[in-house]
Amino acid sequence: MPTVPMIEYVDASDEVRAIYDDIMTTRQIDWLNNFWKVLAHHPPTLRRTWESIKAVMAPGALDALTKEMVYLAVSVTNGCAYCIASHGAAARKAGMTEAMFGELMGVVGMANETNRLANGYRVPIDPMFD
Amino acid sequence: MPTVPMIEYVDASDEVRAIYDDIMTTRQIDWLNNFWKVLAHHPPTLRRTWESIKAVMAPGALDALTKEMVYLAVSVTNGCAYCIASHGAAARKAGMTEAMFGELMGVVGMANETNRLANGYRVPIDPMFD
Amino acid sequence: MPTVPMIEYVDASDEVRAIYDDIMTTRQIDWLNNFWKVLAHHPPTLRRTWESIKAVMAPGALDALTKEMVYLAVSVTNGCAYCIASHGAAARKAGMTEAMFGELMGVVGMANETNRLANGYRVPIDPMFD
Amino acid sequence: MPTVPMIEYVDASDEVRAIYDDIMTTRQIDWLNNFWKVLAHHPPTLRRTWESIKAVMAPGALDALTKEMVYLAVSVTNGCAYCIASHGAAARKAGMTEAMFGELMGVVGMANETNRLANGYRVPIDPMFD
Amino acid sequence: MPTVPMIEYVDASDEVRAIYDDIMTTRQIDWLNNFWKVLAHHPPTLRRTWESIKAVMAPGALDALTKEMVYLAVSVTNGCAYCIASHGAAARKAGMTEAMFGELMGVVGMANETNRLANGYRVPIDPMFD
Amino acid sequence: MPTVPMIEYVDASDEVRAIYDDIMTTRQIDWLNNFWKVLAHHPPTLRRTWESIKAVMAPGALDALTKEMVYLAVSVTNGCAYCIASHGAAARKAGMTEAMFGELMGVVGMANETNRLANGYRVPIDPMFD
Repeated sequence: MPTVPMIEYVDASDEVRAIYDDIMTTRQIDWLNNFWKVLAHHPPTLRRTWESIKAVMAPGALDALTKEMVYLAVSVTNGCAYCIASHGAAARKAGMTEAMFGELMGVVGMANETNRLANGYRVPIDPMFD
Repeated sequence: MPTVPMIEYVDASDEVRAIYDDIMTTRQIDWLNNFWKVLAHHPPTLRRTWESIKAVMAPGALDALTKEMVYLAVSVTNGCAYCIASHGAAARKAGMTEAMFGELMGVVGMANETNRLANGYRVPIDPMFD
Repeated sequence: MPTVPMIEYVDASDEVRAIYDDIMTTRQIDWLNNFWKVLAHHPPTLRRTWESIKAVMAPGALDALTKEMVYLAVSVTNGCAYCIASHGAAARKAGMTEAMFGELMGVVGMANETNRLANGYRVPIDPMFD
Repeated sequence: MPTVPMIEYVDASDEVRAIYDDIMTTRQIDWLNNFWKVLAHHPPTLRRTWESIKAVMAPGALDALTKEMVYLAVSVTNGCAYCIASHGAAARKAGMTEAMFGELMGVVGMANETNRLANGYRVPIDPMFD
Repeated sequence: MPTVPMIEYVDASDEVRAIYDDIMTTRQIDWLNNFWKVLAHHPPTLRRTWESIKAVMAPGALDALTKEMVYLAVSVTNGCAYCIASHGAAARKAGMTEAMFGELMGVVGMANETNRLANGYRVPIDPMFD
Repeated sequence: MPTVPMIEYVDASDEVRAIYDDIMTTRQIDWLNNFWKVLAHHPPTLRRTWESIKAVMAPGALDALTKEMVYLAVSVTNGCAYCIASHGAAARKAGMTEAMFGELMGVVGMANETNRLANGYRVPIDPMFD
């Protein structure tokens, strides 16, 4: 059960509805993730989060697929079940194949392992990288 | 100071030296990261870690640059200073521009933020993703 | 399913029952969180954890509401579902309004984001803070 | 050494300088944290991060001191050295006394401890909180 | 629901089945954890992960029970529900009693607490340990 | 620089000095870690933390060496530099050999890796462990 009830489109204020419309238009979808329906309880957070996500996830120097895979890698590292499910789906929609997902998880796993080996052995940063 | 002294090439056993050689040949470099010189104290860990890294980071369904950026994203999320320095350098060597780095950090930051919004609001997984 | 069965008040030893009584008296409630019923399997941990929580959460230089919100902020950052649910409820009971919760999540989210930006850019600590 | 050189005020573009001016005016200070001078390498991130921080940290339903203490609690949990130093200083400037800091660390410590006890014992969420 | 369907023994390729056989032979069991059935979608990850786990978890300078308890301690710290369940069971099978589990959770909890106290107070490393 | 100046034995209050004495007597040492000298600024935290550590780390169902290695494993997972240094030293003093340390890091690394594979693949808990 979410912390707050979800606000459906038909029950939303004009302010929230305008953001909902922008989300659906930008993403070319006709439904809304639960994430947005919950954030709608605090419209400043809904607006700020959406504006940031829209800016950050737009293709630029990095393409949309790479961005979704990075988002997924972070979510997996943090163990956020909701984000793993939603950004896993988004990455697949953006073109992530099973082979790409398999390799992505391999990199995420090894990075999490070697991060701890570097910590545990207290490896000094190589002079040319410092 | 590292937990154990670093083992230089000239001081390494034949077993370790063979792995050092494979690292330098595979990466087409003529020096070794401190990471490997420290792991060399436990040859099974050195061998296993290098074999895994070699397999996981080789280009496949994902290219080398994407893999290095994912590695960096995980290391930044975990706050591993050594790994941020070394994989930041590796990503740049593989072609990451300043613009790409800027966008990468933007995605990593937003993912870490929204992971917590999803946690805090206890957002239920959308039925189509469950 | 918890790792160990929960120990109800009627089934508890005298030692555990005394702690249960102190929890209910201190908090002015007539029931016990599952957390305590599970810890009761290891009475030293139950006693030590309760004594610490009682000391740490008592109003002092910080009021009870601020303490519950900080507890919630940490639990959200760590992604502990049980703690988010129970300390979210405790914070509300202590007076956290929806507006306060919305702002709290905003701060928690931004802190998690900027923690990673500071990591990723390897920002040096400002001299006056070092 | 930061990942990118820091951009001082005198060397900043008009776009960056306008943000720098807004930071100093809003905070009523005459200098800039290293954090902003590093983010300035990617002006969209600088702008977005500052606009979000300005909105999130402004007093509202929660006062500025509470917000700074929550920020510090998250940074301590994540182990971000830069953020602990800068937000520790900011919290003190906003009125955090040594006694408040001592209690804050007590709460942060216990939350991190009990988050793991709840994980390890797999405590089921209490029905009234689910 | 897992990200990918689980591959049962009867549906597995020869390559996967050989790994499944090695897992069951090594562990002297006649069934397979869901973990392996899911990894089987990416055979290189299945093989690499199993070979690493087999090497790392074999008794050596540390006995099997100590290794399982360390694995559990890490999983509890990271909040990985699957790993807490499976390695909790494995530790019990290897001989962990309730008293040992209670003490283990006590240590894990205190380490997570004092890690944050050390962070928050920015305690300098003692000269003889640096 | 620590957040607060360290309180040396000669400058300590009677209350703090009594705790310092108990730490040195219990551990059979004639000096104090920086950790305690910093916590001394908030005597209730110093007392509570020491009493908890003393209880939790005393040999019981688990021996002192196992407890120190678990403490180290958690600290490595969290990336706490101070705790890695001090508990690494404590584990060595309690009898951890280089071979044991090498195997310990191997387990810590693999646990951190497979925790993320289990997250990323959303592996369902095996029925007999649920």
